[in-house]
Amino acid sequence: MKALVTGGAGFIGTHLVRELLNRGLEVVCVDNFTLGHQENVDCFADNPNYKFYKLNIEETENFCEALKDEKIDIVYHLAANSDIQKGGRMPSVDFNDTFMTTYSTLELMRRNGIKNLFFASTSAIYGDKQELLTETIGDLRPISYYGGAKYASEGFISSYTFMNDLNTVVFRFPNVIGPNLTHGVIYDFVRKLQNNSHELEILGDGHQTKPYLYVLDLVDAIVKFTLDMEMKPGVEIYNAGVETATSVTTIADIVCEVLGYENVKYNYTGGKGGWKGDVPKFQYDLTKIHNAGWTAHHTSDESVRETVKYIKDNN
Amino acid sequence: MKALVTGGAGFIGTHLVRELLNRGLEVVCVDNFTLGHQENVDCFADNPNYKFYKLNIEETENFCEALKDEKIDIVYHLAANSDIQKGGRMPSVDFNDTFMTTYSTLELMRRNGIKNLFFASTSAIYGDKQELLTETIGDLRPISYYGGAKYASEGFISSYTFMNDLNTVVFRFPNVIGPNLTHGVIYDFVRKLQNNSHELEILGDGHQTKPYLYVLDLVDAIVKFTLDMEMKPGVEIYNAGVETATSVTTIADIVCEVLGYENVKYNYTGGKGGWKGDVPKFQYDLTKIHNAGWTAHHTSDESVRETVKYIKDNN
Repeated sequence: MKALVTGGAGFIGTHLVRELLNRGLEVVCVDNFTLGHQENVDCFADNPNYKFYKLNIEETENFCEALKDEKIDIVYHLAANSDIQKGGRMPSVDFNDTFMTTYSTLELMRRNGIKNLFFASTSAIYGDKQELLTETIGDLRPISYYGGAKYASEGFISSYTFMNDLNTVVFRFPNVIGPNLTHGVIYDFVRKLQNNSHELEILGDGHQTKPYLYVLDLVDAIVKFTLDMEMKPGVEIYNAGVETATSVTTIADIVCEVLGYENVKYNYTGGKGGWKGDVPKFQYDLTKIHNAGWTAHHTSDESVRETVKYIKDNN
Repeated sequence: MKALVTGGAGFIGTHLVRELLNRGLEVVCVDNFTLGHQENVDCFADNPNYKFYKLNIEETENFCEALKDEKIDIVYHLAANSDIQKGGRMPSVDFNDTFMTTYSTLELMRRNGIKNLFFASTSAIYGDKQELLTETIGDLRPISYYGGAKYASEGFISSYTFMNDLNTVVFRFPNVIGPNLTHGVIYDFVRKLQNNSHELEILGDGHQTKPYLYVLDLVDAIVKFTLDMEMKPGVEIYNAGVETATSVTTIADIVCEVLGYENVKYNYTGGKGGWKGDVPKFQYDLTKIHNAGWTAHHTSDESVRETVKYIKDNN
């Protein structure tokens, strides 16, 4: 069985590629190293089941041409600009890296008759909703270009799935953290504290509170719902998350504790969101994915702690 | 006040351009004549308030460059592939003509600080839902490439509206008919009967039942919600429709009656939908738009009858 992982040299992609290879699949990995890193995938280079293509997936014709002779059974489409804040400064980033990569992936599948798709969607498609986020709530209004591009991707995926009889599983990811993380609040705090261990600037009021899912828990869920369970015709959407959540101030506390910084003065920039397009709080209804047989092992706080420990031990 | 109408030489666009000019606005009209026609807009050519650009809107950089010195106050974005059946055969049609035109329009607005947007969305974003369609129902699964591309457009519009403080009104159109119609079931029936007045092939089982809105009623609503009423920050979405609906068999009956064909034998191809991606039945909840002060003048059957009469008198 041969899997294509788009964004396979990225933070989540690397962990997924490793697990797929561990399970004996052939893996075709595509990345352009915008957020992914060559070093992330060097470890797979000697595996005969592993093949790498450096490609800009958003260039639809080139991408489809390069992969036209690979006999792919399932596509894990993870390629995206995962840095929402960066996308806010330049919407073409999410247009190209988050949306166009999806269109190219769907065209590859249509042209080559590939039937199985896993798509990495996001909590950001819900926009700034105050209620508990169930998969079926309506009136969704994404507020970031990233959220808009993922929402758009879900729309195209829905129509391609129906028109081409695909079996599609969509996970809406929350914040995902763990080894190899490339950006985000934890990463920022560590970097800032390494520069100045007396004061820490915190974007917003510190009350932004989100569930942080540990990347290995997520990969466990992905393979369970695409390999262990039979994929079925149509689009099946799950909130993939963890029931607990962590505030930004708590993240700062954990970072300081694990790195051994004491009496750090927190300077809040103020406001509810960290930046324009930031959704300050959300909570998933996880009934559907729990009932389907998967629950995260790590709590949100444990995920933060593990991630900070990893950064401490590897920098 | 200057308005940009994308797809302004198309079926709905032409009627809107006329109404905006009647109201004394300057109108910049853009079309590439894929579905629009030069003849539709020839009548405006001598109006000093009218300006036309022949452009492929999906070519973002060209489009933005061409219009960069126009000081536009409001954009009516109608440009799209409105022929769902055609898009089903080649998804790049809806990708380019329905989705990319939206992205280009949003980029033009962002780069030039244009704040007011009207967007022509569609019932097709709801997919094949059995329930009454309220604007806020969730779990939407568009099944046609056209529906997917409009759904994607709504996602980008939501994020651009938030990130750039736009005032946006979205109408989800049902089937819209009337003078200058270029395609669709009525047009097909007239053409088929002109070739053979004894038999009429009807796609599906004839029970497909949809609301048909008269184009002049729609234009009345568009100007009411964008010019007569103040546009406000954020995205306001309305189902724009008519409470009644007409079955495909009833359309055939009206076409035969108005054109004077008797004893026509109907041959049904069978199946619930006319083609893959066709939504056979839907009904809008119109409470929101009615409460806001607008109701269609023509019933669905009246709209069909007026349209057939127009085709009869003008062909």
